[in-house]
Amino acid sequence: MSAVTPARLRPRDPRDARPRLLAIDWGTTSLRGALIDARGRIVARRALPHGILQVAPGDFAATFERHFGDWLGQAPALCLLSGMVGSRQGWREAPYCPCPAGFDALCRNLAWLPAVGGVPLAIVPGMSLVPSGGVDAVAGVPDVMRGEEIQVIGALRLMNRRDGLLVLPGTHSKWVHARDGAVIRFRTFMTGELFALLARHSILGRTLDAQAPLDEAAFVRGVRRGLRDEALGHLLFGVRALGLFDALDPAQSSSHLSGLLIGQELRDMRPASGDTVALIGSDALAPRYRLALAQLSCGAVVFGDEATWAGHQAIHDHLMETAA
Amino acid sequence: MSAVTPARLRPRDPRDARPRLLAIDWGTTSLRGALIDARGRIVARRALPHGILQVAPGDFAATFERHFGDWLGQAPALCLLSGMVGSRQGWREAPYCPCPAGFDALCRNLAWLPAVGGVPLAIVPGMSLVPSGGVDAVAGVPDVMRGEEIQVIGALRLMNRRDGLLVLPGTHSKWVHARDGAVIRFRTFMTGELFALLARHSILGRTLDAQAPLDEAAFVRGVRRGLRDEALGHLLFGVRALGLFDALDPAQSSSHLSGLLIGQELRDMRPASGDTVALIGSDALAPRYRLALAQLSCGAVVFGDEATWAGHQAIHDHLMETAA
Repeated sequence: MSAVTPARLRPRDPRDARPRLLAIDWGTTSLRGALIDARGRIVARRALPHGILQVAPGDFAATFERHFGDWLGQAPALCLLSGMVGSRQGWREAPYCPCPAGFDALCRNLAWLPAVGGVPLAIVPGMSLVPSGGVDAVAGVPDVMRGEEIQVIGALRLMNRRDGLLVLPGTHSKWVHARDGAVIRFRTFMTGELFALLARHSILGRTLDAQAPLDEAAFVRGVRRGLRDEALGHLLFGVRALGLFDALDPAQSSSHLSGLLIGQELRDMRPASGDTVALIGSDALAPRYRLALAQLSCGAVVFGDEATWAGHQAIHDHLMETAA
Repeated sequence: MSAVTPARLRPRDPRDARPRLLAIDWGTTSLRGALIDARGRIVARRALPHGILQVAPGDFAATFERHFGDWLGQAPALCLLSGMVGSRQGWREAPYCPCPAGFDALCRNLAWLPAVGGVPLAIVPGMSLVPSGGVDAVAGVPDVMRGEEIQVIGALRLMNRRDGLLVLPGTHSKWVHARDGAVIRFRTFMTGELFALLARHSILGRTLDAQAPLDEAAFVRGVRRGLRDEALGHLLFGVRALGLFDALDPAQSSSHLSGLLIGQELRDMRPASGDTVALIGSDALAPRYRLALAQLSCGAVVFGDEATWAGHQAIHDHLMETAA
């Protein structure tokens, strides 16, 4: 088993009609792919519920070929994989790139896998933020991301910008500061996970309808409370107390809780009034963050999956330029 | 069915050897009682795992008589019940007394039940904190307690004080400011519930040993981080990141998480350096709060169950004085 090295990469003649990139994002619970043609257009997409948690150790290559063998057969010049597939529990560990790190650092630290069907295969590493004094449990608390770095790189490319504040809502929301095309620092919040835990397992869950559609007024009230300088443990009990006083019904409680948690993110990040934040998120979450940002007079430019695929293309292009 | 009124209370001759008070604390998950003699001494105690959640509606009187019929047979002058037994899900709802409220307010708002075996029976109400502008979901968030008010009154009596800051750790920790013998304001934190949720159901639970004994150094590091001006959702992800970097093992992670949550309480409450806080808590929690308070150079006077029974006696004594 010999790993393919970047030296084996060959830039293609622009007239070569074969796909140039097979881009894969393989996360904890989902496996998504995009096939990108010689002109940089996405010609096919695929999404499967086969996250890395569903794959037995040693079974990654076979799972990948089973789901993407037909695309590999079209002989793309390169296949890139991002996301938790590069974690210790994934196909192969791609150690975190310490910030500040841009896409050149990601390229230098790709974890190359043995080629499959002649196609070079590499895993994009995550990024880490390690305080200058080192890691310790008081001042030196590190942070990590894996999968979001490619979306950040992609969103910057799509905006044709090298600087800015980006937010990636989710189970573990990330706020990212980019400068000169690199991630200089970032911060993770367990927002989605806390919401799910509280809605399912806490006393709040008894009087909260987690499936209710967004109640904008209750959400905004939650954001405003979340922005206050109060401990989350107290703000959460307030949701229950408001329910006891009939000031929040079960649908409102759900939106209010969501607002509280997102408000706490904003309180920490303090984007400046008038700033525009790049928001990379699902149709379910993006409107909530847009509304929350509006409370601070901040705008949002919203991206979806396209940020991921643009990030893959940025890495592809950089590799081909340096190989040329 | 006729409710007994305070008018039926008769102060006893001090030489009467029968018990003067049957004190009951009936919470969500436990039922505890103390029998107090004519000289104010606790002559018997009883604790049962029959919280109000285990009692069918309409079955409270029978459950009470089954477990305490023998004590009722000794003809105490009064039986007082505190805790969730006075909630909407309890024996009978005793509406919250709005703060500021002292034990005289609790006495005026007792919910009298029909006498059992000739013994007058009353439920002690909880307390509420309702902002002066009324209840709304931004500025006007109320707070409530039920069961803690009796412990606060009792601890003040045991300390022979009318003022101070008190903390009652638990599933929903309470911090209480007392002045002139009354609760003037208080604040609830879902600390114990959050710890249990995170240890059992979150990603942190995978690398955390919730049963491990307290690791004081890891706990104190958690308190110090909790005191910082950072969102809990971010501090929590730090526990995971520290684990990934081998800076916290599973036993340390548990203590660190506990410290974070308690540190957030302290950050909100900001007791002044040199203050002594009355700490009413279990043997499991009191040492943690004592250690956390020491980080702010605050002392602690610790009380256990005796605060509850002293609170019941304070109410008994006040009722008998006014009946005399």
